[in-house]
Amino acid sequence: MSQKDLPEFADPMTRPKYVGLPTFFRAPWKEDLQDVDIGVIGVPFDGGVTNRPGSRHGPREVRNQSSLVRLINQATGVAPHELCRVADIGDAWVPSPFELVGSHKAIQDTFDRVVEQGIVPLAVGGDHSVTLPIFRAIAKDRPIGMIHIDAHCDTGDDYMGSKFHHGAPFSRAVEEGLLDPKRTIQIGIRGSVNDIDLWKFSHDSGMRVMYMEEFYKLGVEKTIAEARRVVGDGPVYISFDIDSLDPAFAPGTGTPEVGGLSSLEAQLLIRGCSGLDIIGADMVEVAPSFDPSGSTAMVGANILFELLCVTSEAVAKRRVT
Amino acid sequence: MSQKDLPEFADPMTRPKYVGLPTFFRAPWKEDLQDVDIGVIGVPFDGGVTNRPGSRHGPREVRNQSSLVRLINQATGVAPHELCRVADIGDAWVPSPFELVGSHKAIQDTFDRVVEQGIVPLAVGGDHSVTLPIFRAIAKDRPIGMIHIDAHCDTGDDYMGSKFHHGAPFSRAVEEGLLDPKRTIQIGIRGSVNDIDLWKFSHDSGMRVMYMEEFYKLGVEKTIAEARRVVGDGPVYISFDIDSLDPAFAPGTGTPEVGGLSSLEAQLLIRGCSGLDIIGADMVEVAPSFDPSGSTAMVGANILFELLCVTSEAVAKRRVT
Amino acid sequence: MSQKDLPEFADPMTRPKYVGLPTFFRAPWKEDLQDVDIGVIGVPFDGGVTNRPGSRHGPREVRNQSSLVRLINQATGVAPHELCRVADIGDAWVPSPFELVGSHKAIQDTFDRVVEQGIVPLAVGGDHSVTLPIFRAIAKDRPIGMIHIDAHCDTGDDYMGSKFHHGAPFSRAVEEGLLDPKRTIQIGIRGSVNDIDLWKFSHDSGMRVMYMEEFYKLGVEKTIAEARRVVGDGPVYISFDIDSLDPAFAPGTGTPEVGGLSSLEAQLLIRGCSGLDIIGADMVEVAPSFDPSGSTAMVGANILFELLCVTSEAVAKRRVT
Amino acid sequence: MSQKDLPEFADPMTRPKYVGLPTFFRAPWKEDLQDVDIGVIGVPFDGGVTNRPGSRHGPREVRNQSSLVRLINQATGVAPHELCRVADIGDAWVPSPFELVGSHKAIQDTFDRVVEQGIVPLAVGGDHSVTLPIFRAIAKDRPIGMIHIDAHCDTGDDYMGSKFHHGAPFSRAVEEGLLDPKRTIQIGIRGSVNDIDLWKFSHDSGMRVMYMEEFYKLGVEKTIAEARRVVGDGPVYISFDIDSLDPAFAPGTGTPEVGGLSSLEAQLLIRGCSGLDIIGADMVEVAPSFDPSGSTAMVGANILFELLCVTSEAVAKRRVT
Amino acid sequence: MSQKDLPEFADPMTRPKYVGLPTFFRAPWKEDLQDVDIGVIGVPFDGGVTNRPGSRHGPREVRNQSSLVRLINQATGVAPHELCRVADIGDAWVPSPFELVGSHKAIQDTFDRVVEQGIVPLAVGGDHSVTLPIFRAIAKDRPIGMIHIDAHCDTGDDYMGSKFHHGAPFSRAVEEGLLDPKRTIQIGIRGSVNDIDLWKFSHDSGMRVMYMEEFYKLGVEKTIAEARRVVGDGPVYISFDIDSLDPAFAPGTGTPEVGGLSSLEAQLLIRGCSGLDIIGADMVEVAPSFDPSGSTAMVGANILFELLCVTSEAVAKRRVT
Amino acid sequence: MSQKDLPEFADPMTRPKYVGLPTFFRAPWKEDLQDVDIGVIGVPFDGGVTNRPGSRHGPREVRNQSSLVRLINQATGVAPHELCRVADIGDAWVPSPFELVGSHKAIQDTFDRVVEQGIVPLAVGGDHSVTLPIFRAIAKDRPIGMIHIDAHCDTGDDYMGSKFHHGAPFSRAVEEGLLDPKRTIQIGIRGSVNDIDLWKFSHDSGMRVMYMEEFYKLGVEKTIAEARRVVGDGPVYISFDIDSLDPAFAPGTGTPEVGGLSSLEAQLLIRGCSGLDIIGADMVEVAPSFDPSGSTAMVGANILFELLCVTSEAVAKRRVT
Repeated sequence: MSQKDLPEFADPMTRPKYVGLPTFFRAPWKEDLQDVDIGVIGVPFDGGVTNRPGSRHGPREVRNQSSLVRLINQATGVAPHELCRVADIGDAWVPSPFELVGSHKAIQDTFDRVVEQGIVPLAVGGDHSVTLPIFRAIAKDRPIGMIHIDAHCDTGDDYMGSKFHHGAPFSRAVEEGLLDPKRTIQIGIRGSVNDIDLWKFSHDSGMRVMYMEEFYKLGVEKTIAEARRVVGDGPVYISFDIDSLDPAFAPGTGTPEVGGLSSLEAQLLIRGCSGLDIIGADMVEVAPSFDPSGSTAMVGANILFELLCVTSEAVAKRRVT
Repeated sequence: MSQKDLPEFADPMTRPKYVGLPTFFRAPWKEDLQDVDIGVIGVPFDGGVTNRPGSRHGPREVRNQSSLVRLINQATGVAPHELCRVADIGDAWVPSPFELVGSHKAIQDTFDRVVEQGIVPLAVGGDHSVTLPIFRAIAKDRPIGMIHIDAHCDTGDDYMGSKFHHGAPFSRAVEEGLLDPKRTIQIGIRGSVNDIDLWKFSHDSGMRVMYMEEFYKLGVEKTIAEARRVVGDGPVYISFDIDSLDPAFAPGTGTPEVGGLSSLEAQLLIRGCSGLDIIGADMVEVAPSFDPSGSTAMVGANILFELLCVTSEAVAKRRVT
Repeated sequence: MSQKDLPEFADPMTRPKYVGLPTFFRAPWKEDLQDVDIGVIGVPFDGGVTNRPGSRHGPREVRNQSSLVRLINQATGVAPHELCRVADIGDAWVPSPFELVGSHKAIQDTFDRVVEQGIVPLAVGGDHSVTLPIFRAIAKDRPIGMIHIDAHCDTGDDYMGSKFHHGAPFSRAVEEGLLDPKRTIQIGIRGSVNDIDLWKFSHDSGMRVMYMEEFYKLGVEKTIAEARRVVGDGPVYISFDIDSLDPAFAPGTGTPEVGGLSSLEAQLLIRGCSGLDIIGADMVEVAPSFDPSGSTAMVGANILFELLCVTSEAVAKRRVT
Repeated sequence: MSQKDLPEFADPMTRPKYVGLPTFFRAPWKEDLQDVDIGVIGVPFDGGVTNRPGSRHGPREVRNQSSLVRLINQATGVAPHELCRVADIGDAWVPSPFELVGSHKAIQDTFDRVVEQGIVPLAVGGDHSVTLPIFRAIAKDRPIGMIHIDAHCDTGDDYMGSKFHHGAPFSRAVEEGLLDPKRTIQIGIRGSVNDIDLWKFSHDSGMRVMYMEEFYKLGVEKTIAEARRVVGDGPVYISFDIDSLDPAFAPGTGTPEVGGLSSLEAQLLIRGCSGLDIIGADMVEVAPSFDPSGSTAMVGANILFELLCVTSEAVAKRRVT
Repeated sequence: MSQKDLPEFADPMTRPKYVGLPTFFRAPWKEDLQDVDIGVIGVPFDGGVTNRPGSRHGPREVRNQSSLVRLINQATGVAPHELCRVADIGDAWVPSPFELVGSHKAIQDTFDRVVEQGIVPLAVGGDHSVTLPIFRAIAKDRPIGMIHIDAHCDTGDDYMGSKFHHGAPFSRAVEEGLLDPKRTIQIGIRGSVNDIDLWKFSHDSGMRVMYMEEFYKLGVEKTIAEARRVVGDGPVYISFDIDSLDPAFAPGTGTPEVGGLSSLEAQLLIRGCSGLDIIGADMVEVAPSFDPSGSTAMVGANILFELLCVTSEAVAKRRVT
Repeated sequence: MSQKDLPEFADPMTRPKYVGLPTFFRAPWKEDLQDVDIGVIGVPFDGGVTNRPGSRHGPREVRNQSSLVRLINQATGVAPHELCRVADIGDAWVPSPFELVGSHKAIQDTFDRVVEQGIVPLAVGGDHSVTLPIFRAIAKDRPIGMIHIDAHCDTGDDYMGSKFHHGAPFSRAVEEGLLDPKRTIQIGIRGSVNDIDLWKFSHDSGMRVMYMEEFYKLGVEKTIAEARRVVGDGPVYISFDIDSLDPAFAPGTGTPEVGGLSSLEAQLLIRGCSGLDIIGADMVEVAPSFDPSGSTAMVGANILFELLCVTSEAVAKRRVT
């Protein structure tokens, strides 16, 4: 008999936080994708980064810090592990990480399999370029809406010879018919730019761009209302770039921009998405090596939990319907 | 003749901040407890911690950083060292730190002696479990009220075989008749939970629990008003857990919870306690090893100074009456 | 042929951020002061510091992090490098750094030469004592106004035998007829003091002192209005001490004070200076060794960019007039 | 089909090092203890620490860093995963971590089950007090020999009311008949002491104590020879305390002592144990929070690998015999 | 007149170390490649990294720390700036950093231009894959010899779909006829491997592989003798990977291996190359984000200086001949 | 009764290391200089630093870390607190820290008083310039000998307008007749120089300069023999600059030089001074802000303890004679 069989051997999810293997939220590890409603999945790829690489180590550290997160969202009462079968389904397999386009293809293959199993993916980056292959898997049938919380619109153009870097996934997604710009809102945009029309694509395509200054004036509640107005009742994806937070809250990221959201504001924004028809979400750009205190991954794990909660509500709701 | 006798040898409390021994606020060191009104005292014990230990090193580092604090509170004009005889009265003596219950007894012994001398204690943790033995010394005659600023209610149940850990002092205190739950307010509560009724004790016993979301909506001023309403005119204790602050402001702590107070909000809250009949206070859970920048202990020292200021006002007021 | 001559060899200011020499904002390096409208200049001197030295390394690290800043201010649309000829004009030369008064003289000599060339200086400290010799160069003809964002009024008295330390430049500046106290506003003042009348000089001379508590109540917009009322239409200098920010945002500084501004609030305050007749500015007291994450210099570089933007507008406006 | 079934989906042990769950050496996770020859097991307990706690987080971080270790020992040619079935068998279960004696009992229970399965344990601390309960499981039949690499003999007396702290496991082990002092060598001993006879027990009982100064003079080879002479052919345990290394190599530990071994010397010492009849080993006292660079856990993982290699040779040899 | 023209304005190379722009060794900045004997050149590319990226930031930080290095090598008396015209010739231009093979082509183009100007290159990585394109420029006429100090032979095979990653430049170089394996020595090799024949190419091709254990036994002097024997009188390149150093000396690197060289041993090894016909050298794999103390780049700058010294001797000697 | 009077309240010097005020070695605090044989004294002054300031914070952090040091030197058996009355006699008082020459005068005044009381000083810097005023107090009667362990001879010339900076104390000391160059040995010298004759003064005056390379060849024992030969039987002072250690062991210092001593070598060297007629010693240049791990101050405290041990032997010996 191993200790595993002891009656008093507690549930992995409620043991002391320093014990055992760090799966996401200490949920079951299910690389075989069986019996899973929501699959939390790492995408350890940062080949699309333009300046500070290192988000390939994001999933590892977020898993580690996610042990600090408990089972129930105290603010909303949501218990995602009760609403759904949540599992850590491993990392997207990238056999050729030295090459950007092929890597995106491999990531898409993984997400194709996830989607085929009827699993709602909750992805952990990796750099923001990985959202494009996720969309290719998740939105192949119809364009989807998006609530996008980020310092950057990521609807840029070619950069250094590539059109698939981490500053451009959403222009590509619109061009490929995966993302409905009219049902897209981008919140927290800020920072200096080299081209005053850098986010021209967002504006021209009809995305709702809420710069940081507008957010500061509107406040959280009105921003939520506007986001809900934009995305409406259709299927929606939430993409959360950790650099939407101010570097004081999340220094460990590739493209930090001063003057961002607080962690609390970010949490409240995501809670405000409750009831939407969420079909997937991601939390990207945690680059642990730039944060010797380890806080960024901890913040990322908490944001991921908020995403899990609203996603689990959506999954449960769809099940009923 | 030593330099001590030089006329130009400045007051320790106004020398350059890097000079001399770091007593709390560079106040006199009085382990003999003579001629002291307010005794700032370390409680270097973290045997009640459930995850990240290290707050036993809190008093040392807070003493060190407290040299940065000067004599007068610029915001309120309070000069605590003029209002009262403030001293660093050393550390509570814990002869058997490997055992929780006995350690609490030893801590209580120290505080018994402090209280017997008529000294108002201002304690620096150590983990939050130490507030229980402090209460046993300070509230033995009658239950007291409390303003409790924290991410957690700390009114939990048994955990891992112990009912005296740092997540449960206040349920024990109520059970022992030391704390009046009707005159208790808990501010800043947040974070995920494993049991939706985790703080059932707080609610059932009649404590006023102000979750972070409510605080965010009310703002500082209304929160202060509510706190004053709850605790009323009777004797009140202020217990400040550094994890009430957001990890961006205080990463060096045992149970960080994303989405917390800013340092300024915390300072304003404590200043709002001016005029209350404060009979003791603590600032706990600074765990320096989790903060390579050293900021957490500095923030803790400043919070401690705010506590000192409102406490010194209360002591002076009682003297007059 | 070197790669310098390749047509595809991009503008230094838009290359990847990790490439090449880190001049301020990757602007041209012009130690000869020719063809420059705004000269960004380091003042690597910290001989006036009272506690934690190290801001002599500030210019180096701010230069390094300033590569993260791009060409255009997205929030305001200002493109300073298009409005003006911006250059990195090197560091002020201090031949005898072991001596405070002589060092100030050397710094003034450098700024005299800058001003003689008709260059508007944007200085990067160094400690705050360096603003005095800058004023001696820039305001020798008439007293100027000032928007001063700082945790401290820096209008103190003698300290440890010197009247020229980093806590006193502005009392000296008024005494020398360089600064008009009636056209001076000081924003963000806070922290404990050893003398309740520490900033008596500010109050007596008629400066508008806005303590942090007042700022918290007024908010950014009303503070901007008040600042504009105080300084009026005359020539104005903006002096930004990084310790105006809360240590969560900028831990790497000599005299951190808990309870300060956020980076966003600071950015908005400076943007609110648009249209004023700015004749110079500085950003001081970044001491990199106290911040292992490197964030403080990054925040400093972004604040410097905001200062550059409003200064470039003023320069362009004066050119037209 | 999940990616798990893809032919090109590589062996977990040779995937990129940032991918997947960090079991020790990315070996299989076998909490059920089936089909295991050598069980690498975490003992996340630091309740026996006398100064700086935190080694409860050691197993987690060593697991994480152990992904950097590959399959084969290049220096010796040993391929432990080929010689034996190596598995990560989880963490020892400590239901009551607030109490030292009971915790040791729980740890022993775990190791009893491991030993009953015929598994050779390779333990990762936790503090050094955990070796005592391991011995109670592994040496219950007869006293064993030990090669002990450490800055401290850990044969101390009562401290602060306890005789089971991390400075005393080996005096207890001798007293309980678990350890044969005549077949015990302690290497690397140094540091200041409060009692000149602190390690009297070691000397009186006949242990071979090699102080750092002697090691420095003898060098690695002669030290190995002496160690082999002392332990002879009988069953031997290797206990490696990370504080045997100089703090330059391993700052993240509870009781650092200046003037220690280099990592290379430690590696060579362990390799010198090849051929001995090793029946178990541990690597203890990695306390990650004291090392912002993360290096200590990485060094610990490499030392653990050396222990694994010589242990696997012993297991293979016993199988043959 | 600017301060540049002041007679007392000191030589940039002897000003205080915190002043001015950080070119390598504060040597002149000559992107135009005119009047240069030895060109120190950054290669900020890390697209060939298999685990921890970030060496693209290496040249920046090495430049910064190189200001700590003075003009003359005290140990050898060599004054490289007197022997040769040393310049910082900027960074190799990589227009398409997202793609490995094309990036190598671009790096080669830069070095082609350098070689065409008769400049001896001293390269600062970047990851070790960049040595291959350097060889393509520098050794196109005939195979060269090499002294290679590293933890890894870097003569590996395909990895994750690429044959040009940072673990394989030297097998490629031999295959392309650029490197003479018989005149190649590799020193400091160690670490675990996934394939016992990982460095089969080195052995089969006739390179002299000196594993760390052999180095430990031989010592510095005999190792130097062996290196000189192997490379002989012909043209030789020195390639220094910072991971040859133990992580205690250089934690900030992509593939740290425990048990390495000390900084002093590395310095002595390079000094031992005096008199060889050195035609180029590199110092690679400094990844600053993994070292919060900043020491790795400082060590790297000092190693680079040793390389500069022996290279300048070779250049001067060839000039005479 | 306070806990101070409890029989079981242990001696401050043997309490847990995190308890109480951090005097040096937890020795008594005696600012009045009464009943002291050896006075450990801080000199928190860094006004003579040429690059990285911050050693003014050295005494504070060394005091803090010195609690880790116990009563007896295990390697030598020396128990300094039994041999002598050791006390922490506070910090040298520098009323005007902004001015170098006057500060030196103030430091001398303090040491004059110490020497007048017959106290042997053990000083903790501060920068190395402070040894000059110490010599002026301690050697006013006759020149003394010195064992000087350092990366730099510190016998330089004027630098940036001053002849009293931290690179020149010993040329001044010889010129003033305080130091006998013939009885002076300097060990560990290394690093690049701007002037090949930088240490001409050392050589010309007859000091024995042992460069690092010679030390590496001779080894510890022969170096000790040579040091003893040079200083002979006369009065000798030991000056230990923490930058003699390699930056891997002590990164937190003002002028780090790669390729230095290990901590163990330094300990052995000082132990080799046993029996000499030591009349004073110092340990200088610990600058804590450059070492986020805190190790440098810990190493410094241990070196200081070695100095205390050999000094206490000398004091005891003189008492007998």
